[in-house]
Amino acid sequence: MDEAELVRRLVAIGWKGSRAVRLGPGDDAAWVRGGVVISTDLAVEGVHFRFDWISPAEAGFRAGAAALSDLAAMGAAPEALLVSLAVPHDPSLAQALQRGVRGAGDRVGVAIVGGDVSRSPGPVVADVVAVGRAGTVVTRAGAEAGQGVWVSGSLGGAAAAVAAWSEDGEPHPGARDRFAAPPDRLPLGAALSGEGLARAMIDISDGLVADAGRVGRASGVGIVIRGREVPVHPGAGGDLNLALYGGEDYELMFTAPARAEARILALGEEVSVPLTRIGRVEEGAGVVLEDSRGRRAAPARGGYDHFAAPAER
Amino acid sequence: MDEAELVRRLVAIGWKGSRAVRLGPGDDAAWVRGGVVISTDLAVEGVHFRFDWISPAEAGFRAGAAALSDLAAMGAAPEALLVSLAVPHDPSLAQALQRGVRGAGDRVGVAIVGGDVSRSPGPVVADVVAVGRAGTVVTRAGAEAGQGVWVSGSLGGAAAAVAAWSEDGEPHPGARDRFAAPPDRLPLGAALSGEGLARAMIDISDGLVADAGRVGRASGVGIVIRGREVPVHPGAGGDLNLALYGGEDYELMFTAPARAEARILALGEEVSVPLTRIGRVEEGAGVVLEDSRGRRAAPARGGYDHFAAPAER
Repeated sequence: MDEAELVRRLVAIGWKGSRAVRLGPGDDAAWVRGGVVISTDLAVEGVHFRFDWISPAEAGFRAGAAALSDLAAMGAAPEALLVSLAVPHDPSLAQALQRGVRGAGDRVGVAIVGGDVSRSPGPVVADVVAVGRAGTVVTRAGAEAGQGVWVSGSLGGAAAAVAAWSEDGEPHPGARDRFAAPPDRLPLGAALSGEGLARAMIDISDGLVADAGRVGRASGVGIVIRGREVPVHPGAGGDLNLALYGGEDYELMFTAPARAEARILALGEEVSVPLTRIGRVEEGAGVVLEDSRGRRAAPARGGYDHFAAPAER
Repeated sequence: MDEAELVRRLVAIGWKGSRAVRLGPGDDAAWVRGGVVISTDLAVEGVHFRFDWISPAEAGFRAGAAALSDLAAMGAAPEALLVSLAVPHDPSLAQALQRGVRGAGDRVGVAIVGGDVSRSPGPVVADVVAVGRAGTVVTRAGAEAGQGVWVSGSLGGAAAAVAAWSEDGEPHPGARDRFAAPPDRLPLGAALSGEGLARAMIDISDGLVADAGRVGRASGVGIVIRGREVPVHPGAGGDLNLALYGGEDYELMFTAPARAEARILALGEEVSVPLTRIGRVEEGAGVVLEDSRGRRAAPARGGYDHFAAPAER
C-alpha cells in the first residue's frame, strides 16, 4: 500500500460528514464552522529532517512554515499555531524547536497558543497545527479543462539540498535555505483566492508531479506540464527532475482561467513572487509531461512516499 | 528542569499576545476568535501507553478521548478532530489507530476532518487535535477562597492498571477499562460552564494533586483536599495514593461557590456522573491534604513528570 492509498483509507475511516464542517478531509486543510481553517503537519526526525542537516531551531521553523503553507494553499489568513513536541530527555531541544516554530509564526504575525510536550523514546516528532480564517477557500477540486497551470517561485531547491546531504556533500547555500526556511506564500494565496484568480490550489510538499496529480484527481481532469517552462531553483543545478519530483519546496501550484493571466502576472509583481504558467488543464486524467516540440511522456514517478518499500526510494 | 518548568518556558517562547486570541496558552485549551476552542494531545508509545497493554484501536480511542477531555475542562462543545500519526512501516497499524480515534469521536458525535501521517523510525506517536466551540469558557484561574473543590467520577483506576502492568500483572478489568477508555465528560463540563456553576476547572490527566496545584497556581489560591472524601475507583483496591497521585483518569476537577452545592449534586444525577466535594479553596498557595481530624500534611509528591530524572519516577 502506498501513502496515497493509506491516506485515502484513513480519511474514509475518520470521516462521516458533519454539519459543523464546511470542507472535510482530503484537501490541504479542513474548513469548519465560522470559517476556521485548520491543518496539521508532522515533522519526524530521520524522515522529514535530520539534525546533521539543520539545527533544532531550523527544524522548528521549517515545521511551522510547512504547517502555515497549508493555509496559504487554501487562501486563508493565519491566526494561530499549536505545537506538539515529542523529544528525547533534553528540555533544551524542545525549547530550540519551539523558538524555531515561533520564528515561522513571527514571520506571518501569529503566536503559538497551545500544544503539548512529551518525552520521546525515539526521534523528535513535532506536530504543528495551523489555524486560520477564510470566508471562502480554494480547494483542489476547481480545475477545469482550458485553465492554465501555474507555480509560484522556483522548484527543486529543497530536494537538491537533501540530495547533497544524502551523498555526504554540502548543499548549495540557496538550496539549503529552501529546505531550512520554506517561503511564506500566505499573502499570495490570500490574494489569489480573494481576487478569484485561482480555481484550484495546492502547496507543493511532495513534488510538482505528485501534487499536480492530486489536483487532477480531485478535479477529475488531466494536467499537462511543459517541462521547459518549469522554473528550476538556482540551487538545483538545472536538474529538471529535482523540480518535477523533489518535494518540500512549499511553493503554490494553482490553476486559473486564461483571461486571468495578465492579472496574475501583475499580482506576482505586487507580492514580489515570480508566478509562472507551466502548463494547462485538459479533459482526461493523470499528469503528462510535454516537451518543447509538443511530444508527450508520462512522468517517471510520483513524489515522496512515506510508505513505499525502501527499495523504491 | 521538570515538566512544569519546561511547559512554562515553551509557553513563554511561543506566546506574544494576539488580537485573534481570547485565551492564550497555559490552560486546558486555547480559545480564539469566533469562540473556537482548540487543544492538542500527544500519545507516545512507550510513554503514554504500550501495545502489550492495549490494542492499537484502544490506543487511538484513548488518544481521542484524552484530547476531547481538554474541551470538557473548558466547558466547550466538540466540533471536530484532526489526527497526526507517525507509525512504523505498517499501514494497518495506522488504520487501527485511526479507527480508535474515530470511536472516541463517534461517542460525542464529531468526525475526523484532517490530519497527517508519516513513517516513524521509532515509536508510534499520535497527536490528536480537538476543536470545539464555546461562548464562554471556564479557565483554571477562577478559584477563590471559600469555594468548594469537586471531582467527577472516581480516581486512581487508570493508575492502578498501569501499576499492575508495570509489575507484569493483569489489572482489574474496571481499572483496565479506565485506562483504555477514558470517560466522556463533555456534557458535564458544558453544563457546569453553561449554568455558571464551575468557576475554575481542569481535567485530571497528571494526577489530582498535580492538577489541583495547577488550578491553585493559576488562581493564586491554596487548595485543601480532604483525603477521605476523594472517591477511589473500585479497581484501585482502596489505594488513596493512586487516586491522589496517579494520572490518566480524565475526570474533571472544578471549584464552585458553596451556594451551588445542591444544584451541582442534582446535575450529577441528571448526567449520571457522581460529583463529590473533596475539599475547599483557601487563601494562600499550594495543595494541602487534610485528614478526618483536620490535621494537615503536604502531599507526598506531584504527578506524572515526563522530564523528571528516571530515578525520581
